Amino acid sequence: MSGHLAVVGLGPGDARWLTPEAQAALDAADALYGYGPYLDRVSVRPGQSRHPSDNREEMRRAAAALAHAAQGARVVVVSGGDPGVFAMAAEICEAIETGPPAWRALDVTVVPGISAMLAVAARAGAPLGHDFCALSLSDNLKSWDVIERRLDAAANAGFVIACYNPVSRARPWQLASAFARLRRHLPGTTPVIFGRAVGRTDEAVTVTTLDGADASGADMATLVIVGSHATRVIARPGRPLVYTPRAATEASA
Amino acid sequence: MSGHLAVVGLGPGDARWLTPEAQAALDAADALYGYGPYLDRVSVRPGQSRHPSDNREEMRRAAAALAHAAQGARVVVVSGGDPGVFAMAAEICEAIETGPPAWRALDVTVVPGISAMLAVAARAGAPLGHDFCALSLSDNLKSWDVIERRLDAAANAGFVIACYNPVSRARPWQLASAFARLRRHLPGTTPVIFGRAVGRTDEAVTVTTLDGADASGADMATLVIVGSHATRVIARPGRPLVYTPRAATEASA
Repeated sequence: MSGHLAVVGLGPGDARWLTPEAQAALDAADALYGYGPYLDRVSVRPGQSRHPSDNREEMRRAAAALAHAAQGARVVVVSGGDPGVFAMAAEICEAIETGPPAWRALDVTVVPGISAMLAVAARAGAPLGHDFCALSLSDNLKSWDVIERRLDAAANAGFVIACYNPVSRARPWQLASAFARLRRHLPGTTPVIFGRAVGRTDEAVTVTTLDGADASGADMATLVIVGSHATRVIARPGRPLVYTPRAATEASA
Repeated sequence: MSGHLAVVGLGPGDARWLTPEAQAALDAADALYGYGPYLDRVSVRPGQSRHPSDNREEMRRAAAALAHAAQGARVVVVSGGDPGVFAMAAEICEAIETGPPAWRALDVTVVPGISAMLAVAARAGAPLGHDFCALSLSDNLKSWDVIERRLDAAANAGFVIACYNPVSRARPWQLASAFARLRRHLPGTTPVIFGRAVGRTDEAVTVTTLDGADASGADMATLVIVGSHATRVIARPGRPLVYTPRAATEASA
């Protein structure tokens, strides 16, 4: 089968985070699929077809892209950030597993990108400098009970926590509930970072504490990083530096 | 203070993973610091000084780079992968916190890069498609007991685990011990990925199971990803696809 499908990470908003490999994959595509606002970030090349879809239609988008590739086209599915982290690469795999057997013979590649947590962490200093986890706070696809158990486990074991999908219009209370849950395990002084729209012109990064963290400060474009016992804040002119030392103290474990 | 220091992520070995922002920071540098093999990947520009050091000298390197920047130079410290994940950004922050007060006034930026776990995951499919953690198996800077507690917590809570620093000449037994520990919590059929030297000419990615995982197959250039209960393997021509679905089953929690 001659078709080819690449799942391409665009990185967060800044074009300077688009890797040469991702740019080459976009340039070579016959057809581009993705969430509309992500596709809008890709420069138009004559002869390429574009297939924007809504952000609730990932499985349908994956199946449409695979069907298109199976016709022999070079198809790209774009993701913001990295396609392997809470994004389209898993949807494509799931569509392949559950779809027509011929899709397994397609040439499929995943082109990594700068994930949002890496970009937010870079702006703040090095909060992910030691053991950490990435956790989606969306309870669309798992129960809130599972999320609470994972918050408990991560905080108690000393992991810094990068929270993806902290809020949406349909999920207004989850982030505040997560902060309340984490306050059972972590000191109120634990550093918390809100990174909104990092790499875009409306970027806003703020550093606060677990006690001071206000969930209403987050929206769908926000990634929230909650430190561990070991995470430190360095006061300096302008925004402080936040980092987690590589040497773990026993208190952080 | 006019000095500037950038901590720059080169990504894994492939130059096509070097972002335009990282390339621009390298081009603008007066001086480059880093582990020798990483510096060797950066093309030489006349007039730049180079300061290679050994991989056990991170704190000394960080202090030297900051002292150089404090003299007014544009200094770059390079990391393989992403500088914020078990790498130089945390060392620079720690050196700032413990160093001369003047260093806090330096203009410091962190330039994110493709972290090894994202590159290995991309080669395998989407094993990090759902909640996951990144854990260093090095017990140079924390006790093995802390590492075991984190392995227990992560596996029991349903996180996929990306293991950084799985082995070194001085740490020969840790990865086998980690596999043994994880077998207490996870089925023997749990997918395990060994990603060695991804992006380099000697790249080798293998997919096995927790029961079949042989720690002697890893070296210092290897990143190991251990799946969760939910991680799936899709047989197909060539290497299988490994992915973790976004919808968690209760069994995976």
